[in-house]
Amino acid sequence: MASMQNSASLNVHPNSLSEKNDDFESIFNSRRRVCFDCDHVSNVRKPLRLNANTRTNVETINGKKVNGSHVGGISYLEQTNSECDDDQEPKNHEYLMGRFVENRFVFRQSFVIRSYEIGPDKTATMETLMNLLQETALNHVASSGVGGNGFGATREMSIRKLIWVVTRILVQVDKYSSWGDLVEIDTWVDAAGKNGMRRDWVIRDFNTKKIITRATSTWAMMNRETRRLSKIPDEVKNEVQPFYLNRASIPPQNNDSEKIKKLTHETAHIIRTGLAPRWSDMDANQHVNNVKYIGWILESVPIKILEDYNLTSMILEYRRECRQSNVLESLTSMKPRTCEGNGEIANQNCDLECTHLLHMEDDHAEIIRARSVWHLKNP
Amino acid sequence: MASMQNSASLNVHPNSLSEKNDDFESIFNSRRRVCFDCDHVSNVRKPLRLNANTRTNVETINGKKVNGSHVGGISYLEQTNSECDDDQEPKNHEYLMGRFVENRFVFRQSFVIRSYEIGPDKTATMETLMNLLQETALNHVASSGVGGNGFGATREMSIRKLIWVVTRILVQVDKYSSWGDLVEIDTWVDAAGKNGMRRDWVIRDFNTKKIITRATSTWAMMNRETRRLSKIPDEVKNEVQPFYLNRASIPPQNNDSEKIKKLTHETAHIIRTGLAPRWSDMDANQHVNNVKYIGWILESVPIKILEDYNLTSMILEYRRECRQSNVLESLTSMKPRTCEGNGEIANQNCDLECTHLLHMEDDHAEIIRARSVWHLKNP
Repeated sequence: MASMQNSASLNVHPNSLSEKNDDFESIFNSRRRVCFDCDHVSNVRKPLRLNANTRTNVETINGKKVNGSHVGGISYLEQTNSECDDDQEPKNHEYLMGRFVENRFVFRQSFVIRSYEIGPDKTATMETLMNLLQETALNHVASSGVGGNGFGATREMSIRKLIWVVTRILVQVDKYSSWGDLVEIDTWVDAAGKNGMRRDWVIRDFNTKKIITRATSTWAMMNRETRRLSKIPDEVKNEVQPFYLNRASIPPQNNDSEKIKKLTHETAHIIRTGLAPRWSDMDANQHVNNVKYIGWILESVPIKILEDYNLTSMILEYRRECRQSNVLESLTSMKPRTCEGNGEIANQNCDLECTHLLHMEDDHAEIIRARSVWHLKNP
Repeated sequence: MASMQNSASLNVHPNSLSEKNDDFESIFNSRRRVCFDCDHVSNVRKPLRLNANTRTNVETINGKKVNGSHVGGISYLEQTNSECDDDQEPKNHEYLMGRFVENRFVFRQSFVIRSYEIGPDKTATMETLMNLLQETALNHVASSGVGGNGFGATREMSIRKLIWVVTRILVQVDKYSSWGDLVEIDTWVDAAGKNGMRRDWVIRDFNTKKIITRATSTWAMMNRETRRLSKIPDEVKNEVQPFYLNRASIPPQNNDSEKIKKLTHETAHIIRTGLAPRWSDMDANQHVNNVKYIGWILESVPIKILEDYNLTSMILEYRRECRQSNVLESLTSMKPRTCEGNGEIANQNCDLECTHLLHMEDDHAEIIRARSVWHLKNP
């Protein structure tokens, strides 16, 4: 099972750039070669206190498919709370620690938005949302009974020095929560092609149970020493497949699959130079925490947009790691999105679409390509 | 009731530098003129769902003093858990939202340390601790029944455009928690001289109930428009005094009351220039979140110290606000602390004491003076 890593170690193996491996085409389109190293932070996570009904032999229980989710094509969540059949009220720490629901196919955790997690517009920031997604994913793995000794790795992965590496994450926000709001996050995993994994999330307003954010991500498997992509060994498949749930948080037609163009100094509207990681941006692996990249991406977005628009969608393609000694540039270009109305006035109220690139200042090596959509707050 | 502000607005009124006001000498030694503006972020906080025994007339209940804490001199917490008389087990959201204990003199909230709140050494960072202290303080005020429409302000303060401004905070850490650890934070307030307020905290390991961190802070009252210090009006006194608890988290002899020397380019060992706030460092008031200053202070601490030592104590004196357009310098000097042993070998294992200054790069206007103590991890 994969997770969004706190311990981001995006390394590209020198040989991987010329490597051909059709098994991974479905995950690594445009020859992405990116990894999150989750193994160096071993022994960080203590086992969570689980429910009385916790079991370790996961195959036998999840072997029986429930909810009809594996029958026919992939299902996706409706706008309503139809899929939210709370098994039963959790107690005390289960709220804080998270718990399995839906026959252990879905892991659910509640969070209160804290005062320091809101931004200048007084609502939770995109960084906060990404942090909470990461936390839920890691607790999912840690609570699954198959967790190994690294962030997000299974036991069989740890034995084989394999790690999950994130290649893409898409977050779509309907509503940002405010300080003190209680949210409930569901996460689950599924296959992505032959050798990839998908992790999805939905965030609900705890009180209304309405879905306020949807997210999906794609992961590949890599040897942490050779930095080469790997097939998923059968032993690992046996661990993770019982958890696979054929449900998509974002319907395919909304999955923002259009290629992200590579910006250059010529095509970018705004370039912010000299971005240097701080010590406090470093994680347990002394690499930049992957969520921190969002802050740098937003550094090249005009303040007027940050102030007047809501960030409603963001897609990130991770390509290369960043260490504390690196100095980065953040590039952004902007255009109005296709809009209902016509003419200039209508255009003024259109959503904006930004394309972003984060690269090294010296050799322009790509770190992240991203696209964001912005909706005017009070048109 | 004060709180550590998310909305840091440290402004100095032009007249205040030459102002004389003996009432505040006990709070503002060395003529500190600092404020946190907590009023511009009004209407952010929705009322928390309170316990059934919530009341609004605070005077009548807290008017009766309990626990002997107001008899004789100030008491302080023992190293043990003797003061931790949990009134009764809270339920579900109370864990997340916090609740009053000890006849409403103490506000208590539980937190799980999240994966993205740990640093390179895999334990919670000082920033994380400060964030949690802030959150507990703000929830204390919001749950008190006297909260106004700003972060940490009471109703009578809001009417009078008064805000609490933090002048000093001291945090002493015995043990840093790891990912997944559950901590319980108690906070309470007391008078500090005639016109100040003290807010204390203790952080306990939830399972052992052992105190792992102690913190204390001092606050003054200021008019948010004139930026002048104010006496506490009787109406405000009536609101907050019923909550005063004559107990200190840190015994007076450990209160690190020695003056923090002002560093200069000549006396500093390390100077880190060009520190620029990012958009994501800004809070709801578009000022730098006060906890973020810690990150900049640590930028001038050698990586060898950050890696090999634990930050066991940190005292911050806030003096001036910082906005996004400011560029800062971080200065640090270091010396070994008085040590048990003698000779060179003993000195190598001594604790280190650092003095810090954060000031504007252009005119060297002081933002924060600080002192930190570092203990070798594996001597």
